[in-house]
Amino acid sequence: MSIPEALFGLIVTNEGHDFSDFSMDFDSMEPYLRPAGMAIPELQSGQVLIKVRMAAINPSDRVYLKGAYGQPRVKGIAGGFEGVGDVIAVGSGLYGKALDGRRVSFVTAPGGSGSWADYAITDAKFCIPLRDEVKDEDAAGLIVNPVTAAAMHAIAKKTKSSSFVLTAGASQLSKFMIALGRDSGMRPIAIVRRDEQIGPLMGLGAAHVLNLTDKDFDDRLANVISAEEPRTFFDAVVDDVSTRIHDTMPSRSRWVIYGKLSTDVPKLSDPGQMIFRGKQIEGFWLTEWIRSTPLPMQINTYRAVQARFADGRWSTSIAEVIPLDEAMERLPSALAKATGKVLLKP
Amino acid sequence: MSIPEALFGLIVTNEGHDFSDFSMDFDSMEPYLRPAGMAIPELQSGQVLIKVRMAAINPSDRVYLKGAYGQPRVKGIAGGFEGVGDVIAVGSGLYGKALDGRRVSFVTAPGGSGSWADYAITDAKFCIPLRDEVKDEDAAGLIVNPVTAAAMHAIAKKTKSSSFVLTAGASQLSKFMIALGRDSGMRPIAIVRRDEQIGPLMGLGAAHVLNLTDKDFDDRLANVISAEEPRTFFDAVVDDVSTRIHDTMPSRSRWVIYGKLSTDVPKLSDPGQMIFRGKQIEGFWLTEWIRSTPLPMQINTYRAVQARFADGRWSTSIAEVIPLDEAMERLPSALAKATGKVLLKP
Repeated sequence: MSIPEALFGLIVTNEGHDFSDFSMDFDSMEPYLRPAGMAIPELQSGQVLIKVRMAAINPSDRVYLKGAYGQPRVKGIAGGFEGVGDVIAVGSGLYGKALDGRRVSFVTAPGGSGSWADYAITDAKFCIPLRDEVKDEDAAGLIVNPVTAAAMHAIAKKTKSSSFVLTAGASQLSKFMIALGRDSGMRPIAIVRRDEQIGPLMGLGAAHVLNLTDKDFDDRLANVISAEEPRTFFDAVVDDVSTRIHDTMPSRSRWVIYGKLSTDVPKLSDPGQMIFRGKQIEGFWLTEWIRSTPLPMQINTYRAVQARFADGRWSTSIAEVIPLDEAMERLPSALAKATGKVLLKP
Repeated sequence: MSIPEALFGLIVTNEGHDFSDFSMDFDSMEPYLRPAGMAIPELQSGQVLIKVRMAAINPSDRVYLKGAYGQPRVKGIAGGFEGVGDVIAVGSGLYGKALDGRRVSFVTAPGGSGSWADYAITDAKFCIPLRDEVKDEDAAGLIVNPVTAAAMHAIAKKTKSSSFVLTAGASQLSKFMIALGRDSGMRPIAIVRRDEQIGPLMGLGAAHVLNLTDKDFDDRLANVISAEEPRTFFDAVVDDVSTRIHDTMPSRSRWVIYGKLSTDVPKLSDPGQMIFRGKQIEGFWLTEWIRSTPLPMQINTYRAVQARFADGRWSTSIAEVIPLDEAMERLPSALAKATGKVLLKP
């Protein structure tokens, strides 16, 4: 295949960090993205050029656009942390050669360009060659949410408890964790905001689903925690409900923060939880997991994740697939109402 | 020595927890303690009866009296977590026999009676037989502060950094940690509230002492942290200054909470510190350290602690030694103005 000279994509228009706005909502995409062309640079050693089939929009993308993500914004390249596509050119370097012509799931790398485009540039080591059974719709978001779910599930499995707590219980990531929990004999506890989310999550394998807007939520939470004794709490919300959940949990429980959906600022109201009950507050970031996890263990995780999509134990709930050239207009409302994943298609 | 039938001490008058008051100040001791006699019960297996020489008053005692400590108050027995005295009787059990007649430092145990009395009852395993060189004034507080300091210093030593941060930098415990840090080639950073504390702490071995009431405290903190790159933060205060210190520290820093001197409730304002910078909030409690640390390692720590007092590398700053029968009247003002340890003497 001949290498194109330019790509067309949603180009990031801001540089660096801005921690003034933690919300993930968008009235309009214009302050953050610009549909435009960009010359494709010569590939460096270890890089690959991917013809994008589909790209995911994750919460981390939304926080990144606002400027509040761990990595600062890079102006002038396409947005989008992950997608699926076909490798059509490779730079020098051994590992890249093996990917030439393969369909891959990928995440973007420093020095490349993002997935919300017809072509993306990333590092060969950030690509996972795909089995034929994995659908593009699943492959577009095969890394960020699924690998995070698998890695956090491994944290829960290492504790002595057979239960764990999830906020944002109806998110795609929580659904993956609930299924993983059920399949490994664990009893996941999901916290949600709407009653209609309870049935589907119970069906997926949650042992308990609690609606935090219920009048008796605190009592029900105390009962469920007393019965199941969960020791890990995976929190994507971080508000005063999170503090109460952690305070209610047994001694030596770990509060693992991996997102910040709430714009509230919780209080650290009872340090006795840390001192006398041995509790801990920590974070999880996939980028750090990749940096610190031995490669063979990473590869095992990627294989296991792909196998779950290939045989149907996991599937991605798709809310909408939006053509790339309609994205600027349609994204704000699609993201606001989405109860599943929004994908972009060049 | 004949065994007395009764002890005289400061008897705890409240039962259980009360988390409404975290302050450590006392207008009067009457709501919490009553000077009274108490029959000495028959010693159980493993217990010892100690004729008390001196007893310490620690921050943990003060929090305990208020009801906000990890262990709930036990009404009807003498208060006081630690002291020094002579073992004058032992219950059945092998280890106790070896202590008979020995001068020991001790902490109290469930089922016993506290150190603020002429006689105390505790478990043989909570006694440390003393070398002659260790003075009663040091031996009265040989366990709670010094062992906590030694155990927390070991946490700091395990990180890759050669520095650590201490709030309440002029406390007895911080002084022990500063000397330990200096002696092991580390560079302690102490945070204080008064300029006159700076000189003595620099003399003890602090690499930096910062006054948090200085106008340019935030800038100086940032400079010192950037230069020393401390990875552990031992915090006995827990307020918004604590949050700022932790936020200023490098990635993967641990905030170790071991006390709560401030009555402010800090905010968990930036969860990105946990997610993207791998930071952690945890606690330290000596009771848990004793529960979870292998006995040989504990014994090594007790030996090392005693050796430091015996050869003068450590010494306790004594503010006042108060006779037990004047304690009710004199304690409130002695504790309020103390810049060193207040001891009780039967």
